[in-house]
Amino acid sequence: MTILRLSMLRSSRALNPLALGLRCVRCGTVFALGDYHEGCPVCHDRGVPASLAIEYAELPKSLDRLADWQIYPDHPTLGEGDTPLVRMDGLAREIGVQDLFVKNEAANPTGSHKDRMSRFVVQRALDAGATTVAAASSGNAGASLAAYAAHVGLACVVVTTPDMNPNWRRAIEVHGATLMAAETPERRWQAMVGRVKTGQWYPATNFILPAVGSNPFGVDGLRSIALEIFRDLGGRCTDIVVPTARADLLWAIARGYCDLRRAGFLVDPPRVHAVEPFARLSKALAGEDYRGTFPGRTTLVSIGGSTVTYQAIDAIASCGGKAVVTDDIEVREDQDRLARCGLYLELSSAAALTGARKLIAEGAMSADAVVVLVGTSSGLSEFHTYTEAIATVT
Amino acid sequence: MTILRLSMLRSSRALNPLALGLRCVRCGTVFALGDYHEGCPVCHDRGVPASLAIEYAELPKSLDRLADWQIYPDHPTLGEGDTPLVRMDGLAREIGVQDLFVKNEAANPTGSHKDRMSRFVVQRALDAGATTVAAASSGNAGASLAAYAAHVGLACVVVTTPDMNPNWRRAIEVHGATLMAAETPERRWQAMVGRVKTGQWYPATNFILPAVGSNPFGVDGLRSIALEIFRDLGGRCTDIVVPTARADLLWAIARGYCDLRRAGFLVDPPRVHAVEPFARLSKALAGEDYRGTFPGRTTLVSIGGSTVTYQAIDAIASCGGKAVVTDDIEVREDQDRLARCGLYLELSSAAALTGARKLIAEGAMSADAVVVLVGTSSGLSEFHTYTEAIATVT
Repeated sequence: MTILRLSMLRSSRALNPLALGLRCVRCGTVFALGDYHEGCPVCHDRGVPASLAIEYAELPKSLDRLADWQIYPDHPTLGEGDTPLVRMDGLAREIGVQDLFVKNEAANPTGSHKDRMSRFVVQRALDAGATTVAAASSGNAGASLAAYAAHVGLACVVVTTPDMNPNWRRAIEVHGATLMAAETPERRWQAMVGRVKTGQWYPATNFILPAVGSNPFGVDGLRSIALEIFRDLGGRCTDIVVPTARADLLWAIARGYCDLRRAGFLVDPPRVHAVEPFARLSKALAGEDYRGTFPGRTTLVSIGGSTVTYQAIDAIASCGGKAVVTDDIEVREDQDRLARCGLYLELSSAAALTGARKLIAEGAMSADAVVVLVGTSSGLSEFHTYTEAIATVT
Repeated sequence: MTILRLSMLRSSRALNPLALGLRCVRCGTVFALGDYHEGCPVCHDRGVPASLAIEYAELPKSLDRLADWQIYPDHPTLGEGDTPLVRMDGLAREIGVQDLFVKNEAANPTGSHKDRMSRFVVQRALDAGATTVAAASSGNAGASLAAYAAHVGLACVVVTTPDMNPNWRRAIEVHGATLMAAETPERRWQAMVGRVKTGQWYPATNFILPAVGSNPFGVDGLRSIALEIFRDLGGRCTDIVVPTARADLLWAIARGYCDLRRAGFLVDPPRVHAVEPFARLSKALAGEDYRGTFPGRTTLVSIGGSTVTYQAIDAIASCGGKAVVTDDIEVREDQDRLARCGLYLELSSAAALTGARKLIAEGAMSADAVVVLVGTSSGLSEFHTYTEAIATVT
């Protein structure tokens, strides 16, 4: 009886029968469904690392069940996804566009969009027979993976930097995950390589240099954001603005809209724009080698790091978006501005608003634009301390 | 043109035409729809303070649009409500019930169930011509009111205690609200009385002693939790466990189910149980005067305080629930336990799990129970610091 129920459980977590393999976002080679932790083996061997992405033989004919569009139609869940699209009329007038919405990913169970990835990563890890999942993360991704690993009974290791903020540390450790520190993002990745190669850790994130995107089963789960925006706004949305580092989210939203076009639901997808805290993707789009190192400093830790991925270039090309660079001080003002409109998002999320202002100033977004800012993560994860006491009531 | 659009906006925020007034939960007197900030005027004058609640002439015939069940079918929104009901099979087996779910109110825009109240409180404040809303709060309610006030352009004051945790302080101040501190809950209330009486502040919470519930327009918004649980589980749910202080949430969930019964959707509502960190309601149910002071110490700040309200007694009576007292150390263990199953909730929320264990131990909940724990607020709002560094990766 127990065995029967277990096997029923397994079959209910089957891979989507429409998925035919993994396709390289750069060279187009298709591989059998499986784990290729360094991205496309062909491009890797040629020294031009690039991500693989789930390739579907065909797409569903309906949007009634968005789960049918994804690699795991059934999956472990803590209630992620279906986040609110919050209308911001005052901000729309202020920045000079027709309509402005925030897709509030802070409403996910661990407070960020990473939950849409983690649900599939832990399922894939179970299918692969792994016992421990691992992520290199400064916060969001680690807390999310720790929660979903706990939910399905996997061990979890998060490799972070020594200065991780205590709110994130608590959120990761309370789920029972192990935290380890390394000085730089590159050292974090080095710490993962050996353990991934021996099968000790199943990776949720990139760990090679030049970098590729995160686990493709996880990235597939982010496409749902595009499907939800389309379900809610139809073809009205003209521009989506995405805080970006290695572009899992940017790429997945662009791919989600390309999928909708391929399935015949729309003709012209919205432009999907990248916002970055210093020039990385901007330089790669202007012709610099994407495999280089792009040093820069920022307080926007969730979209920091000195690397670019090929998938970022692919995303911008597929939807005709732009990459814009923001100034940390302006982003901090826009974090306050969003909070004064009701939404307290983390600093990196507020870069979407600053980026939208830049796109308008540059003429890349028009006065009749219908804009969605992706609010990637909750402000509650930020750590603030005070020296002055709260004023006493009189 | 502008005037026309404004008037359209006003009419779209009309009161529910099914609402006929406010009824006292104790004496049953019905008053015209309006603001009675000290609860029922009749009971107040008799020295037995009690809450008023929105009274509906009739209830909708359908659950297709839950908004039609509420005082403001249309209202300012940041995307609150429709929170996930998260299935916890491992925990169900562990505590010995048929099914266990957590209604995860942390998925609301400011991370707690209070958002369901704040959306209606700010709308009512606008209708009443107020310019400033105010709350006595140690965290959740203040952050929520600050966010919704910011969203609609009202000023906001939150009266708190001097030791408010910095995560909450930040969440309130970033929305532009003013924080003021008073030593005790009673002093917080005293600070509000004068300003409410002169119309300077429109109150979201209680401020009198003996205490009543929060603003009845706000409490009406909490009933939606019951409607959503019923929509998702039908008549299967047998027990709902609610962390409780002055019982806005407890009462509203019980009333939501009574409304469903009245409208013919079910015959037997689930039992709605209260969990408290020291004996207050338990004592009042055992015969002590509910107007008394019930001193006790707890680290569960969101459900602390030394007062009981009449609405708590009404809620327990209407759905046949029990009140159970938990131990802070056990609650802390259960916070970890929930996080090890994937959900990081604040300490006060975890009291629901500890309370469920107690109800089973006392025979008040059976092995075939289908239980919903109300996860009232996110763990991310908790403030933790560390003295030891994160271990370095080897």
